[in-house]
Amino acid sequence: MSKASIIGAYNTEFGVFVKKDPATGLMTDTKTYYDLLVEAGRGAITDADVAPEDIDAVYVGSCSPASFLNQEHVAPLAAEIHPSLRFKPMTRTECACASSTVALYDAIYAVEAGRCSNVLVIGVEKMNLLPTPQMTHVLACCSHWPSEGSRGMSFPMLFAEYAKGYQAKHKIGDEDFEKMLFTVGALGYKNGAENPLAHAKKGPVTVEALKALCQPDERGKSKNMMIAKPLRLHDCSLVSDGAAALVVTSTERARKHRKPAAEIAGIGHSVERLPIGVRPNMHELQAGKDAARKAYKEAGITAKDVDFAEVHDCFTINQILSTEALGLSQDGRAGYDYMEGRFTREDKVAVNLSGGLKSKGHPVGATGASMHALVYKQLVGEPIGVKARKADVGVAFNVGGSAVTNCVTVMRRLN
Amino acid sequence: MSKASIIGAYNTEFGVFVKKDPATGLMTDTKTYYDLLVEAGRGAITDADVAPEDIDAVYVGSCSPASFLNQEHVAPLAAEIHPSLRFKPMTRTECACASSTVALYDAIYAVEAGRCSNVLVIGVEKMNLLPTPQMTHVLACCSHWPSEGSRGMSFPMLFAEYAKGYQAKHKIGDEDFEKMLFTVGALGYKNGAENPLAHAKKGPVTVEALKALCQPDERGKSKNMMIAKPLRLHDCSLVSDGAAALVVTSTERARKHRKPAAEIAGIGHSVERLPIGVRPNMHELQAGKDAARKAYKEAGITAKDVDFAEVHDCFTINQILSTEALGLSQDGRAGYDYMEGRFTREDKVAVNLSGGLKSKGHPVGATGASMHALVYKQLVGEPIGVKARKADVGVAFNVGGSAVTNCVTVMRRLN
Repeated sequence: MSKASIIGAYNTEFGVFVKKDPATGLMTDTKTYYDLLVEAGRGAITDADVAPEDIDAVYVGSCSPASFLNQEHVAPLAAEIHPSLRFKPMTRTECACASSTVALYDAIYAVEAGRCSNVLVIGVEKMNLLPTPQMTHVLACCSHWPSEGSRGMSFPMLFAEYAKGYQAKHKIGDEDFEKMLFTVGALGYKNGAENPLAHAKKGPVTVEALKALCQPDERGKSKNMMIAKPLRLHDCSLVSDGAAALVVTSTERARKHRKPAAEIAGIGHSVERLPIGVRPNMHELQAGKDAARKAYKEAGITAKDVDFAEVHDCFTINQILSTEALGLSQDGRAGYDYMEGRFTREDKVAVNLSGGLKSKGHPVGATGASMHALVYKQLVGEPIGVKARKADVGVAFNVGGSAVTNCVTVMRRLN
Repeated sequence: MSKASIIGAYNTEFGVFVKKDPATGLMTDTKTYYDLLVEAGRGAITDADVAPEDIDAVYVGSCSPASFLNQEHVAPLAAEIHPSLRFKPMTRTECACASSTVALYDAIYAVEAGRCSNVLVIGVEKMNLLPTPQMTHVLACCSHWPSEGSRGMSFPMLFAEYAKGYQAKHKIGDEDFEKMLFTVGALGYKNGAENPLAHAKKGPVTVEALKALCQPDERGKSKNMMIAKPLRLHDCSLVSDGAAALVVTSTERARKHRKPAAEIAGIGHSVERLPIGVRPNMHELQAGKDAARKAYKEAGITAKDVDFAEVHDCFTINQILSTEALGLSQDGRAGYDYMEGRFTREDKVAVNLSGGLKSKGHPVGATGASMHALVYKQLVGEPIGVKARKADVGVAFNVGGSAVTNCVTVMRRLN
């Protein structure tokens, strides 16, 4: 079986692409969902330098476009990218915040099966048309609705359960634990400040600054308020609009192609049961570890071979759990490792050079494609933002829901 | 490349699985979405006689579970089918009413790529928890929202455009056209009456009966009222709850397996642009014809080789258009052919022996898997309902949206 490779990628700017109509108070688009999808798709095709007529299929990963903007059945929108895409197969995948990594995996299968030569993968989401309570409701639908969402459990609350489980398991004092989380958050902001496409380019880049923001102001309000104990506002990723896209082909074809390529050396896709209440180990990503094991095995590597990783810091605690699931830290050690300065751009292994979901932004359905786009761009020597010290092997670890859908991809520069 | 085959299938009963709480007036489940998904998945695994631990991946096709019942991220629910499915890859696909055929296609790719040995495909939808106006809104999200849904265009209105386009193109008189549509509707009810799983087992089985129902009663109400001219109530399919599932493996493995199998001999997946306003030919399924051409080519057959077909009669007009797209009738002739008694169980080619979406029911995300389950069951000699006279080659033609996603599958009994 010939493996698949990425030969082109594009990431739109991430941000808030709506404005409030002063007359009606309603949100209107400054860049629509439709615009974002087409911009990303065209961008990736251009970057890959393939003719649009040579794209054999399109996979679109998107989480909740019907809930956010009344548009279901979004895959056919890819026909607007270029007239020659009309009549091609177009499929939407949805696995919460991992929607576009599973789109990529299906594209890989289509290539590996010999069904397609070149496949376009797009991840897209537009979240900011809705006010916060409705947006929170839409995301809560990605939890197990009967036992979680319908009972008022939001995603910060679900990941707070992991935070509490992790802290208890490893007997971490409150002060240390807060410092760990802030260290991770500050690192994201620091890296994101150099990412020209990031949603939050200016964030508090030190633990001290994040701590200072916890103090209530004269009205009793804190700029780093508690959202779901122990998670504060700056432990949460951003609500963003954006899209990203990739062009996938066979490694055999990629080798002959005029553009640099990165091989999908290994993938691991492991799915946990949906309700957190049934999971025995709320201090680790069991399915995430399984996904990493599968991906490393297929790629023939160990954690020691990883040069850099983009991991799913929907909440700071998940960056810590993901770092352990990837085997970059020992269990119970990741928080301390971050505090000791590991995983920065200077380290042997860098994590979230893009700024991560915390700073780069988190348009949920776009995130998986974006992570892969960023890893690809590092591997081919065209980093978006901070450059990796060494970029032979990169990993993307995208998570959907409350650590339910776990996707680990190992990519390798193709020489 | 080894082809893929179906080795097991299951179809739940289709119907309305809710009841109104007399106290609150709210709808409550008599069989939940979660129940339906698990019942279908377990049923297909049992029918295929494979061990649950030998299922390597699950694809779940579902259209709008977040809108219907606040549950997005539904693929992981498949972990509830059996403990050994925990940590397996699970992916949801959505392409409106073709959501579970694209799930099947992705499963086929995974098998053909050698990534998986056995894949479980589930289609599921629960539509009846919402009152009609909200349900109509949810479905309208599958149209092009900015130009259609947001302007009050419902799906009956969109297919009425095809009906008017077809009637005008082929210069069919009103009386003949009405009779064509009623003939198709009556045939669906007649076949569905013998399908033990059908939603509407008792419907008007003659053109005369459908015509009689058009007469207004003493209150001016007609039981076959006009919904979107020229489409009446009995030209529309049903709003159903239900699920269906399939087990897919390689043909090589299927040949050695102890259960009868049907090979996926050819697939065609062609996607039209989303807004109907941009399509030049509103009298034919251009992308549907393209899908049929691809599927026949891959299977090495022509329309003459087809013994029976399940086609997507979301509206009676679409059964006529689909019959032509599959080449079973010449362009402009399908309506006349149906009126002349073609495509019944006695004919050389039978269409919708199950009763079709009109009588069997149309739980949108389940429909594709259901069509394939029915064709498979015919091919292996275990028909659900009316038996095909000859069942060597069967076709499923599943459509998503306003004839946007077009999926044609040719299946062949594996001896």
